[in-house]
Amino acid sequence: MARIPDSHPRKKSLESRQKIVDGSAMGLLAESAMIAHGRGEAFDYLLGERTTSSAKGAIRECAARLMNARRSVISVNGNTVVLAGDGAIRLAAVLGCSIEVNLYYRTPSRVKGLISLLEEKRLKVSQEDAPEGFNGSWKDSVEGVSLLGDSPDFKIEGLEGPRSNCTKEGIGGADTILVPLEDGDRCEALVSLGKEVLVVDLNPLSRSAKMATVTIVDEVSRAFDGILHSLLNDLDIKPTDWDNGESLKQSMKEIADHITE
Amino acid sequence: MARIPDSHPRKKSLESRQKIVDGSAMGLLAESAMIAHGRGEAFDYLLGERTTSSAKGAIRECAARLMNARRSVISVNGNTVVLAGDGAIRLAAVLGCSIEVNLYYRTPSRVKGLISLLEEKRLKVSQEDAPEGFNGSWKDSVEGVSLLGDSPDFKIEGLEGPRSNCTKEGIGGADTILVPLEDGDRCEALVSLGKEVLVVDLNPLSRSAKMATVTIVDEVSRAFDGILHSLLNDLDIKPTDWDNGESLKQSMKEIADHITE
Repeated sequence: MARIPDSHPRKKSLESRQKIVDGSAMGLLAESAMIAHGRGEAFDYLLGERTTSSAKGAIRECAARLMNARRSVISVNGNTVVLAGDGAIRLAAVLGCSIEVNLYYRTPSRVKGLISLLEEKRLKVSQEDAPEGFNGSWKDSVEGVSLLGDSPDFKIEGLEGPRSNCTKEGIGGADTILVPLEDGDRCEALVSLGKEVLVVDLNPLSRSAKMATVTIVDEVSRAFDGILHSLLNDLDIKPTDWDNGESLKQSMKEIADHITE
Repeated sequence: MARIPDSHPRKKSLESRQKIVDGSAMGLLAESAMIAHGRGEAFDYLLGERTTSSAKGAIRECAARLMNARRSVISVNGNTVVLAGDGAIRLAAVLGCSIEVNLYYRTPSRVKGLISLLEEKRLKVSQEDAPEGFNGSWKDSVEGVSLLGDSPDFKIEGLEGPRSNCTKEGIGGADTILVPLEDGDRCEALVSLGKEVLVVDLNPLSRSAKMATVTIVDEVSRAFDGILHSLLNDLDIKPTDWDNGESLKQSMKEIADHITE
């Protein structure tokens, strides 16, 4: 990977792009993963590549709902693992939940490759200092994160084909799912099963964004950092009577203001 | 390529995506071509996947400047050939100008592959009916379009490395260049050589969009169709005292209005 100077104003964005290019070259991502990432880049550019005020509200709401969940899970696809696998592991360690690799274009070799990559990241994160505000053994909590998805034994009702496959221990049995970069159909199917679906999506107009219980319109690694911070520091947050449509409208207004300013 | 039903509301966009995926698989496009296309998709989505009123004005202005040029050329990269190679050939046939394959990430095999693809498209277009308003032999005009770029003998001043290579017959000697999906640095270098640089770019905030003499904020195949129509039907259009900054501001307002409507 070419080194991007620290002074480059869009260093983070260019590094993320390179992660996706490398992940594609390694065969970990779907054919259309780079196109999806490009769409994300454009929306993030329009947001000013920062966590907006409406996204901050959605991040706090997600943190509160994850803390209040009976059983939560983080569902990840290839782009999420490549862009924010470390962040997913930190969140799972704090929440004591599992991570499930769940792909729209599922192939056994891609699932296996992504789980291996998550195992590497889990090892790396277990050797980090605990994040501020965390009590207990960080190493034990990180090592305890289960990585699911290679032996699906459950089907998401209302979906056809391989994209419906998941695990009972993970998505099947969870009441609350944090699922970044999800497809609209699957998001809808999960919501109709009565689950709380917390989505991260840079496009406030996408079907996933509109279908979700709570949508964080933000770049996935920033969103994960924000949820982690909120889980560890906003101690008395509680789920509210969330108006997701209103929050999405705010995101669109933030984009419109940023373009015309 | 999977068949997309005619009834699909985003058929055209999905077909374009498939062309880019196929072009990448054939080795015709740069590593980052799919990411660039994804960015374009997002901006086009925000424009409502239609030629906006400010884009229509820019299209007419480009048509007038191309008609008034002493010597014009159409500079194409991989994504332009794949998405709108046919349209480029129709324009070149009407204008009596050349098409030059000019790549930022130049490799001899990619230039050769793109010229072969343009040759196929030239043959196909030569067998079409002449577009409405065209006088003369369509077949002869199309067959007369030169496809340049495989033997560069000129350098764009102010640029380093392979990306500065071009031909004297094409970009080197032209006073007016229609160059869709161009890089900001090259756009700037061409403008500082005193050339009229007519850009097609879906991102009104990009450096190319800001540097160009005239920027059409539109999807490249729609823009080419629009210029063709204007060349053949708007008979008395003349170049105006064009305010490109104002036109870009209008595009941004059209995006903002579309998102918040």
